[in-house]
Amino acid sequence: MAELYITIGRQFGSGGREIGHKVAEALGIAYYDKELLAVAAKESGLSHQFLESYDEKPTNSFLYSLVMGQQSLLMGGQEDSVEQMAAKAQREAVLAVAEKGSCVIVGRCADYILRDKPGLVRVFICAGQESRIDRVVHRDGVTPKEAADKIRRMDKTRGAYYSFHTDRKWSEAANYDLCINTDCKGLDAAVETIVHFVKGQCK
Amino acid sequence: MAELYITIGRQFGSGGREIGHKVAEALGIAYYDKELLAVAAKESGLSHQFLESYDEKPTNSFLYSLVMGQQSLLMGGQEDSVEQMAAKAQREAVLAVAEKGSCVIVGRCADYILRDKPGLVRVFICAGQESRIDRVVHRDGVTPKEAADKIRRMDKTRGAYYSFHTDRKWSEAANYDLCINTDCKGLDAAVETIVHFVKGQCK
Repeated sequence: MAELYITIGRQFGSGGREIGHKVAEALGIAYYDKELLAVAAKESGLSHQFLESYDEKPTNSFLYSLVMGQQSLLMGGQEDSVEQMAAKAQREAVLAVAEKGSCVIVGRCADYILRDKPGLVRVFICAGQESRIDRVVHRDGVTPKEAADKIRRMDKTRGAYYSFHTDRKWSEAANYDLCINTDCKGLDAAVETIVHFVKGQCK
Repeated sequence: MAELYITIGRQFGSGGREIGHKVAEALGIAYYDKELLAVAAKESGLSHQFLESYDEKPTNSFLYSLVMGQQSLLMGGQEDSVEQMAAKAQREAVLAVAEKGSCVIVGRCADYILRDKPGLVRVFICAGQESRIDRVVHRDGVTPKEAADKIRRMDKTRGAYYSFHTDRKWSEAANYDLCINTDCKGLDAAVETIVHFVKGQCK
């Protein structure tokens, strides 16, 4: 099989991370989520802790850049704020792991960073509010109210980070190849659908 | 198999209509697209021509209602402008064909109208600008420039109609169960993926 790069964007609490892991297992290829931070730290010389603090998170000076219309480093801008140093390290890490061969990459604008790579399949995972709250309550041990707040905050953060670095709208169907709502058939069916889809013959 | 209602939202020129037809054929169930107009005419007593002129199209007085914040009839409003008469007839037609059993319904906010129906699978079909222009040029015999204009106009129209009648955003991944970009694997693979997905075991 030719090289395959499956990127997974996901609403917070939709099960996207678990799905990504299972897809990688099913296809026998590498999986990167938080693992990208270690790669980014190694490649850039920046500390893991520093990179984690900017992981898919816009910050105040990031928002300032947004307002001022400064161009994102992922898009070729030349700014070097701390956020952009972190974003650049993430970008290099995504490119570095893709160089090693087929993989699943969760988040980090990997769909955009690898946009010209043959074998790219861009997946987005979503779910209804109720099931997401339920998942976050059980996974993170928080109250339903705290889960709802976290979901709203995380989606906003991911959406802002994605839009800033890609000039595209996060969660817009047309920016992905396959979007699956896990409420309909569950997580395992989503895994199976993705595996079935990526193995399908190209047109 | 239990009853199955597959609704297909689609970007103009993405191949959604052809996919819907083939999915219905593959599953041996009814298919409704323009066919809904005949049902709506029969059920409502309104003329086919009248209904066609309002088919998924907002008009001036529709836009007026939008600006004035009048509630859509699909959402339970009580206005009875001509657009709303047409929308009500469409709604009744969607409910009437769903009463007859499993089917594929293209467009017309059917995903929203049937939102409480067990067995509903909401699909959205999209594609890149280049392939959509190519498809419209060949299908409608227009120039690439005319095709691009038509795509922009039709998507805007469908989006406005959908938002007004559902209070949801058209083309937003989270409003569907499965979204497929036909650029990735082509139309036949999209048909196969939908059939595979809807036949999948529920969680």
